[in-house]
Amino acid sequence: MSNNKIKLGFVGGGNDSLIGVLHKVAAVMFDQYEIVGGVFSSNQDINKSTAIDLGLDLSRVYNNYEEMAEVESGLDANTKIEAVCILTPNFLHFPMAKIFLQNGFHVICEKPLSISLKEALELKEIKQSKNLVFAVTHTYTGYPMIRQMTRMISENIIGDIQRVDSTYFQGWINDIIHDKDKRSSTWRLNPDVSGISSCLADIGTHAFNMLELVCGMKVKKILADLNNLYDDNPLDIDVSVLVRMENGCKGTIRSTQIATGLENNLNISVYGSKGSLSWEQENPNYLYYHTSNKPLQVLKPGHLYNSDLSLDGTKLPAGHPEGIFDAMGNIYRGVARAIKDEKNEIGEFPTIDEGVRGMEFIEKAVESNKNGNIWMELDS
Amino acid sequence: MSNNKIKLGFVGGGNDSLIGVLHKVAAVMFDQYEIVGGVFSSNQDINKSTAIDLGLDLSRVYNNYEEMAEVESGLDANTKIEAVCILTPNFLHFPMAKIFLQNGFHVICEKPLSISLKEALELKEIKQSKNLVFAVTHTYTGYPMIRQMTRMISENIIGDIQRVDSTYFQGWINDIIHDKDKRSSTWRLNPDVSGISSCLADIGTHAFNMLELVCGMKVKKILADLNNLYDDNPLDIDVSVLVRMENGCKGTIRSTQIATGLENNLNISVYGSKGSLSWEQENPNYLYYHTSNKPLQVLKPGHLYNSDLSLDGTKLPAGHPEGIFDAMGNIYRGVARAIKDEKNEIGEFPTIDEGVRGMEFIEKAVESNKNGNIWMELDS
Amino acid sequence: MSNNKIKLGFVGGGNDSLIGVLHKVAAVMFDQYEIVGGVFSSNQDINKSTAIDLGLDLSRVYNNYEEMAEVESGLDANTKIEAVCILTPNFLHFPMAKIFLQNGFHVICEKPLSISLKEALELKEIKQSKNLVFAVTHTYTGYPMIRQMTRMISENIIGDIQRVDSTYFQGWINDIIHDKDKRSSTWRLNPDVSGISSCLADIGTHAFNMLELVCGMKVKKILADLNNLYDDNPLDIDVSVLVRMENGCKGTIRSTQIATGLENNLNISVYGSKGSLSWEQENPNYLYYHTSNKPLQVLKPGHLYNSDLSLDGTKLPAGHPEGIFDAMGNIYRGVARAIKDEKNEIGEFPTIDEGVRGMEFIEKAVESNKNGNIWMELDS
Amino acid sequence: MSNNKIKLGFVGGGNDSLIGVLHKVAAVMFDQYEIVGGVFSSNQDINKSTAIDLGLDLSRVYNNYEEMAEVESGLDANTKIEAVCILTPNFLHFPMAKIFLQNGFHVICEKPLSISLKEALELKEIKQSKNLVFAVTHTYTGYPMIRQMTRMISENIIGDIQRVDSTYFQGWINDIIHDKDKRSSTWRLNPDVSGISSCLADIGTHAFNMLELVCGMKVKKILADLNNLYDDNPLDIDVSVLVRMENGCKGTIRSTQIATGLENNLNISVYGSKGSLSWEQENPNYLYYHTSNKPLQVLKPGHLYNSDLSLDGTKLPAGHPEGIFDAMGNIYRGVARAIKDEKNEIGEFPTIDEGVRGMEFIEKAVESNKNGNIWMELDS
Repeated sequence: MSNNKIKLGFVGGGNDSLIGVLHKVAAVMFDQYEIVGGVFSSNQDINKSTAIDLGLDLSRVYNNYEEMAEVESGLDANTKIEAVCILTPNFLHFPMAKIFLQNGFHVICEKPLSISLKEALELKEIKQSKNLVFAVTHTYTGYPMIRQMTRMISENIIGDIQRVDSTYFQGWINDIIHDKDKRSSTWRLNPDVSGISSCLADIGTHAFNMLELVCGMKVKKILADLNNLYDDNPLDIDVSVLVRMENGCKGTIRSTQIATGLENNLNISVYGSKGSLSWEQENPNYLYYHTSNKPLQVLKPGHLYNSDLSLDGTKLPAGHPEGIFDAMGNIYRGVARAIKDEKNEIGEFPTIDEGVRGMEFIEKAVESNKNGNIWMELDS
Repeated sequence: MSNNKIKLGFVGGGNDSLIGVLHKVAAVMFDQYEIVGGVFSSNQDINKSTAIDLGLDLSRVYNNYEEMAEVESGLDANTKIEAVCILTPNFLHFPMAKIFLQNGFHVICEKPLSISLKEALELKEIKQSKNLVFAVTHTYTGYPMIRQMTRMISENIIGDIQRVDSTYFQGWINDIIHDKDKRSSTWRLNPDVSGISSCLADIGTHAFNMLELVCGMKVKKILADLNNLYDDNPLDIDVSVLVRMENGCKGTIRSTQIATGLENNLNISVYGSKGSLSWEQENPNYLYYHTSNKPLQVLKPGHLYNSDLSLDGTKLPAGHPEGIFDAMGNIYRGVARAIKDEKNEIGEFPTIDEGVRGMEFIEKAVESNKNGNIWMELDS
Repeated sequence: MSNNKIKLGFVGGGNDSLIGVLHKVAAVMFDQYEIVGGVFSSNQDINKSTAIDLGLDLSRVYNNYEEMAEVESGLDANTKIEAVCILTPNFLHFPMAKIFLQNGFHVICEKPLSISLKEALELKEIKQSKNLVFAVTHTYTGYPMIRQMTRMISENIIGDIQRVDSTYFQGWINDIIHDKDKRSSTWRLNPDVSGISSCLADIGTHAFNMLELVCGMKVKKILADLNNLYDDNPLDIDVSVLVRMENGCKGTIRSTQIATGLENNLNISVYGSKGSLSWEQENPNYLYYHTSNKPLQVLKPGHLYNSDLSLDGTKLPAGHPEGIFDAMGNIYRGVARAIKDEKNEIGEFPTIDEGVRGMEFIEKAVESNKNGNIWMELDS
Repeated sequence: MSNNKIKLGFVGGGNDSLIGVLHKVAAVMFDQYEIVGGVFSSNQDINKSTAIDLGLDLSRVYNNYEEMAEVESGLDANTKIEAVCILTPNFLHFPMAKIFLQNGFHVICEKPLSISLKEALELKEIKQSKNLVFAVTHTYTGYPMIRQMTRMISENIIGDIQRVDSTYFQGWINDIIHDKDKRSSTWRLNPDVSGISSCLADIGTHAFNMLELVCGMKVKKILADLNNLYDDNPLDIDVSVLVRMENGCKGTIRSTQIATGLENNLNISVYGSKGSLSWEQENPNYLYYHTSNKPLQVLKPGHLYNSDLSLDGTKLPAGHPEGIFDAMGNIYRGVARAIKDEKNEIGEFPTIDEGVRGMEFIEKAVESNKNGNIWMELDS
């Protein structure tokens, strides 16, 4: 049946995918999209069974992304996929995004955007020339309290920023890294699949992106210290970075995959001349606002004291905890608005610019470390 | 297109409904349902616009539930609605559920099940005679850590239960109750719409249901103290109940709508001879396990130490907070399995039995209070 | 050497005493007292060794409290003990306090004040006729944030009180209660030593006292449900009480010794028409202040937004956690001020009036339970 | 009266001192010391009134520390001060400690030990030649859960250390730093009084000391980034340091005085190959123990699962929160044992070695920053 929804295609995200479910639920959460086809897996059995579970017309399921791009491009405007969601391993993001952009599809791409800054810049150029929407799914930016934090800082509620700390601590690789066989066989530590970084690329970029987002300010210089832990491990799994922000203030970005027993601790604190704000991903519905001489204030979603964009991202009354699916849903809704040419408030979803910045962060951090922990400027 | 999904109809849940979005997202979360029609609002404009937003065929949108039941019953098996989701004010649950059951539809009904125990028992009888699935959406029972708590207690990990406390504290009615006009005009305090109780019916039943669920044991006797706060307010807004469980242990159920500033604090603690378990709805991904001589243990979703049913209700790796939409999604999936005649593990979704128990709890609590806070047996 | 300090004597509190150290440290914390003698234990070896550790003149160490009262009464005013601290088992409080009062000593007595209301009232009468200071050490009332909570309520910051909940949950008796030998041999469950109650007397009175203190209002009626768990156990170990406050509002007092694994959870919440306040003893430096439409506020000690009495009870800058020794120290300082005839702010230390109220609470709760959970008025 | 207690003298700590009360209470907490005299303030009125409040013989109150050292040295062994507690501004620590050591007094000195490494090393040499006890009061090391954390790491419970993070965040200087007059007049930012550092010296050394203590391992190299915020402010108020530990693992030390609204957040996390441990000073009675596949464990003081030294530092049963006075009391007790020539367990109190390390940390961090954030080895 014809309707108003954006026709969405998937590359990756099959039933064997960890992350597919997140995108599928987020896409349908606000009745903005209809999933119509794609390549859900390179394994054709999974590709097909995923489509069947989704109730799709199997004629819209393709053997590979090149075929998908070609056939879909030829369909008429009322039928064809309008936006493509790319959920494949890092090294495939670039060729896939490129072909879809070139054929006029909007793109929603998992991070990191690519495996090199050069690739990222090329995608940005194509995207701009085509005037398409391009989102990079830094999922955590969709949380209502991140939106509120961003707004409070932009409205100068905490004054001039004078220190920043962004961290992303996980422990999962600890179960792998100490076993030679395991560490040599995981794709996260394989440069051919993951690029030049493991920890920086997988989670450090989230911490970096979050920092620039909430501060409304760029990181100007970084000095990075990376740890591979074992000589035969080619990629970083533990990272400490000193940063200088555009306004001259200092701070750190830290990310690690060897914080044994920790799950998914993306935390950010911004300290200003009038107050401070802190947020933790594992308890995403609490925003801590400190000032010098008043009680700590704890903001929560759904209250009228929050910004419009924060409230827009909260579906139920206060006290009904929404989570990461809801955060991603908010991003998908922002993308839908952009595709439908409504005006997007800054911060509604992360764009290709954030993707490019993330790639520069990775490359410069790796270079800083290689050269003995020296300062590197970011200029993208 | 024909597919494997259960065809779902809505009564209520239009775009002006607070709770509609929760059911709509939950229904599609696991690709088990396809929303195909219904009566989304008694306001026909909203009824239609909701259907359009959902991308529905408008021929499946009805003027009222009687028409819906009649027309849909006549459609062929491959097309017709199989299950109906009832999201209307309390007093409508009974007539609607009755007509849909009588016409062979499975029912998913918001709580409280009805406005009297008599109605509830009548529904149960029809449901049993028709061999249909009937779910009452005590949403909070769908959380992974509630499933884990239930399992740990059933496996005797905390030993014999020796004290229980279940609470549900909200503060929202405080903004209404002190203003004579407001309190006389809210539907929650109108017996014609809400039945004989406000606080008990709206949230006390959740606390009661949760207690019986996690303990795997019935409440045997209650002694209730209700507070209306103002003489011209006909319904309770604050409740304290002493309980005796089947095994003789004692405890309390407390619920209130005048805990000013509190949002949605459904908390439950069960104290056993070998250990204790506590859980809080506002931070649903933490289960606290106390024992006498060991450190407190904090369980979280997604870890292999959890039960199969708990893990089944967690879609992403540990540390990615899922929330209330995900809890409701788990309930919808349980219902789908029951409809498809797969075997349901106890606790996968709340049934009409829980609905009946809830109605008896309300009636007996009101009677206990009316008679000077005396003990009442529950025998349903 | 002669100095300005109050001469303090101890009865109990020897080196084998759990609670002795708390009083000894609290007494010297503000340079207000000098411990000069006493009967530290009925075991004369411990009695003497404690005195030696304290560096006392052994001529001031007595064989029993009668001797102590007699000899000390005869000493000259510059030398003799002025105040006596009573730290013995419950049944000894009365005879000891009586003899010391009659001989003109101020008294600092552990709770419960006695083992019957009659005894308590007799002590109160003597105390009044002698115009002496009498403190009952409800230690937890000395915390700065309890002082702040009390002040905020008295200043109507949360408006009219509309619901109250006070709880004291411990789990320690679980290790004893399930073993017949252990439960028949612990002094806590021996009526000859402990009086008519275990849980009510030991911790329920704290919850009751805290409730009346912070509310600045009396409990008018109670309906109590007690649990002994085993038929051969003569005393309550688990308690749920419905309460009506003087102003008509309702709520609960709950205390238990079978919350397995819990340590010392004295928590109090007061819900008013304009806001709510909550406090937890195990994290005593946080006071939670909820209102309807603003962020939760978390007050901490040492900030100027706190009352004078709260600040008076905080010795170091904010963020340096003081604990239970400091709470008791604050009480001892309040008593010192009263002895030195300075004006005492209400709430600076719990008096014999609180001790009497506590005894009435115990007796009426036991009677309510015995008579089938009926309402009992408190009228002391 | 003659007794077994160590005779203690004070330099500083008068009634106008913030920190005096902490030392005075800690000293008497375990009946190990008797304060007998000193120079409590350079203001002679305060000097005398403090002594009077303490009930001291005024003949033991001196005009200055030189006089105190001279007169006390001449007293007979049963009478004279044995240990001196130094609580003066940083630049006075060295000359005072030197003269007291040279005259045979044990020393308990506030941190930082001195205002240069050179001074610190000179003190260490004198201390060793005289065979005296010398404690540097890193108060926070006295907490029971820090003792437990240290023990668990030394027993390899978390395996090989693979990442470390130690932080000390305060916000108090924010109220001063943005006002030119205020920042030029506070002694903390005056090099003549404070030495070459503000933030590093005042709190960074605590974070550094805590890291080396709990890890049982030295920091080998540091790379420091300091922030003075204003050009006319000569000293650091915000610090980020990259560290390399002896075993090669990496991490950070961060300390700041401009985390607006934060109070006293000394936090430490150590990540090992088998588990991780985290602790926070503001909630000192919780130790968080993470492992890969089990629930988070939260250890608390007073339980038998803790080490002997941890239990030794806990006076009351679990659930009775002890605080910073108790932590300092534990340090004073450790010092008393050392003076009485009992065997000290490592970690019972911080020694002059820790003081020397702290000074080297400050100097090397300042030098690293001055030279463009380069790596510096620590070799003391």
